[in-house]
Amino acid sequence: MSKGKVLLVLYTGGEHAKQESRLLGTIENELGIRKYIEDQGYELVTTAEKDPEPSSQVDKELADAEIVITTPFFPAYITKTRLEKAPKLKIAITAGVGSDHVDLNAANDHGITVVEVTGSNVVSVAEHVLMTILVLIRNFVPAHEQAVGLSWDIAGAAKQEFDLEDKVIATVGAGRIGYRVLERLVAFNPKKLLYYDYQDLPASAIQKLNDASKLFNGHDNIVERVLNLEELVGQADVVTINCPLHEDTKGLFNKSLLSKMKKGAYLVNTARGAICVEQDVADAVNSGHLAGYGGDVWYPQPAPKDHPWRSMKNPYGGGNAMTPHVSGTSLDAQARYAAGVKKILESYFSGKHDYKPEDVIVTGGGYATRAYGERDQK
Amino acid sequence: MSKGKVLLVLYTGGEHAKQESRLLGTIENELGIRKYIEDQGYELVTTAEKDPEPSSQVDKELADAEIVITTPFFPAYITKTRLEKAPKLKIAITAGVGSDHVDLNAANDHGITVVEVTGSNVVSVAEHVLMTILVLIRNFVPAHEQAVGLSWDIAGAAKQEFDLEDKVIATVGAGRIGYRVLERLVAFNPKKLLYYDYQDLPASAIQKLNDASKLFNGHDNIVERVLNLEELVGQADVVTINCPLHEDTKGLFNKSLLSKMKKGAYLVNTARGAICVEQDVADAVNSGHLAGYGGDVWYPQPAPKDHPWRSMKNPYGGGNAMTPHVSGTSLDAQARYAAGVKKILESYFSGKHDYKPEDVIVTGGGYATRAYGERDQK
Repeated sequence: MSKGKVLLVLYTGGEHAKQESRLLGTIENELGIRKYIEDQGYELVTTAEKDPEPSSQVDKELADAEIVITTPFFPAYITKTRLEKAPKLKIAITAGVGSDHVDLNAANDHGITVVEVTGSNVVSVAEHVLMTILVLIRNFVPAHEQAVGLSWDIAGAAKQEFDLEDKVIATVGAGRIGYRVLERLVAFNPKKLLYYDYQDLPASAIQKLNDASKLFNGHDNIVERVLNLEELVGQADVVTINCPLHEDTKGLFNKSLLSKMKKGAYLVNTARGAICVEQDVADAVNSGHLAGYGGDVWYPQPAPKDHPWRSMKNPYGGGNAMTPHVSGTSLDAQARYAAGVKKILESYFSGKHDYKPEDVIVTGGGYATRAYGERDQK
Repeated sequence: MSKGKVLLVLYTGGEHAKQESRLLGTIENELGIRKYIEDQGYELVTTAEKDPEPSSQVDKELADAEIVITTPFFPAYITKTRLEKAPKLKIAITAGVGSDHVDLNAANDHGITVVEVTGSNVVSVAEHVLMTILVLIRNFVPAHEQAVGLSWDIAGAAKQEFDLEDKVIATVGAGRIGYRVLERLVAFNPKKLLYYDYQDLPASAIQKLNDASKLFNGHDNIVERVLNLEELVGQADVVTINCPLHEDTKGLFNKSLLSKMKKGAYLVNTARGAICVEQDVADAVNSGHLAGYGGDVWYPQPAPKDHPWRSMKNPYGGGNAMTPHVSGTSLDAQARYAAGVKKILESYFSGKHDYKPEDVIVTGGGYATRAYGERDQK
């Protein structure tokens, strides 16, 4: 008899997993940890059948699982009701960054530890943000459609093509991802980099950005914290969202806040879909108030076929830079989060529970980070 | 009677030019210089009818023009035969960067000055290079096609998605554009930045890249000149072409050189289409030897409908990041090259001919720059 059950919820790789063994985040390749888990005397059950609650395979297997491992890309929502029916559950591990698909308050109530692999894909996501900003501001999609669509209409693509240089770029959230975005933006010679966060960036982090700007652009004083969110978005040509989803950020970018953005500005969201009100964003793009929206997070995931972000376009026919949730799941990132999950399991099985402090979201019935909102620390 | 004729060849804006007055590079908006030229007592003729030689409007008007202004985006090829039939021509101005559409040797034979607006779009093109590298390595196009095409197959997009971090990136040409590309790459924490050029980068330019790398990545010694081109491309995960087109670079990336590139590498060309052998590149992508090719230069332009770069794809269905020639014609760049053309005209009309030295390609019967190849300076 096994010591306990590990439930692993991943997306299906199918033929792709056969073609590419580095697709570790698939049910076929199981993060490369089956042997390790079985060597510990545990049973491993892997599934992609996560919906619907309460009749899915996940519901069935979670009932007697001790450990559940999920990803943000194809999230099994670990809801309050699911947690109530999982008496043996001790730890929920996120293979990736962002654990909002777990009901964190309920996890606290049940004393369940939630741990993620923080370092695994912050670089991947920051790169995706830079790519999306450039794709939008330089109007890549309509131009590429011409190239492969047998047309040639330079004015049609150029009429909404701008340079990133000399623009104001604002990040909502300047944590591990948001800060990396700022680092990658400095050499593009922006007019200003703004950030909104619950705390100041460390002096050394600001110094680094200013030193780099001095080097590349000949001037420092490049970065500025703005305390008022409406003021922040009102100044920016590009706003990028890099904060976690929690009670205070859910639906944050609604009609009201979007109306405060500059006409013709761009919004990039690689954080979580539910931070934006989907129809309000689509309306803003379709009307041309926003010149474009891009990112790769949706709610729910997979996105339904009629999700308005699939079809929205600005009046010139561009401005949509959506992808499915792939930003954090490059093959390089998969190698890192697979290794990170194994490290967390090693710590768990050893009984030491000496996780990296930055990986722990909730433990011992309370929040271990302020990033998920300004809560009372139990 | 006018003092002389200015012939201006631009692309057609049509409805786009009506919608967007900042589309200065269109026949409708004429770089905003009609009044200025007429105030000088010159006649301005603007046309998009550049083909075919020798029966086009350009051929007809060039016959008695003193000044011709063209762009690289929609190039009127100023050939030897056209120059022979233009006895009054004194100066050919390129509204943008890259004057290879002018037969420079023939221009020298006729004592015609060729001037371009060097600073006008180097930033725009460098940004386009960064965008294209990220689009290719992160596999944006197939992912975006899923998002708007109503599917959701993360593994299908992720199986050829990588991070830019820790890759070797090589530029062929480290001039005004190539160097700006290197600057923008440093914060992405590459394994190494390589360059191939006819001369060393200035020590201060290398120092700047190393200082930035020290700041962002904790180590310097980031950039290295490689003297042998085959060696350069053999080491690189991404090769970006940023050199002018001339006798020595025409067809440079042929089957033989492409075969020296790493399997699965990416090639980005925003310089000139004719630097690559079109079918050899398409074969390399279609076979999977190259994971992708992107850029926005073609030969000829507009690209014919059956140009193989329109339809090429790697075996996984991605790897094509082509755009029509728009990289240097963002609205920001159009403002700069329109202003730059006016400055060149002011210098010409004043009789001083005190152009910016970096703008002059040929003058007084000889080459003013070594960038167009290692030629004998007359």
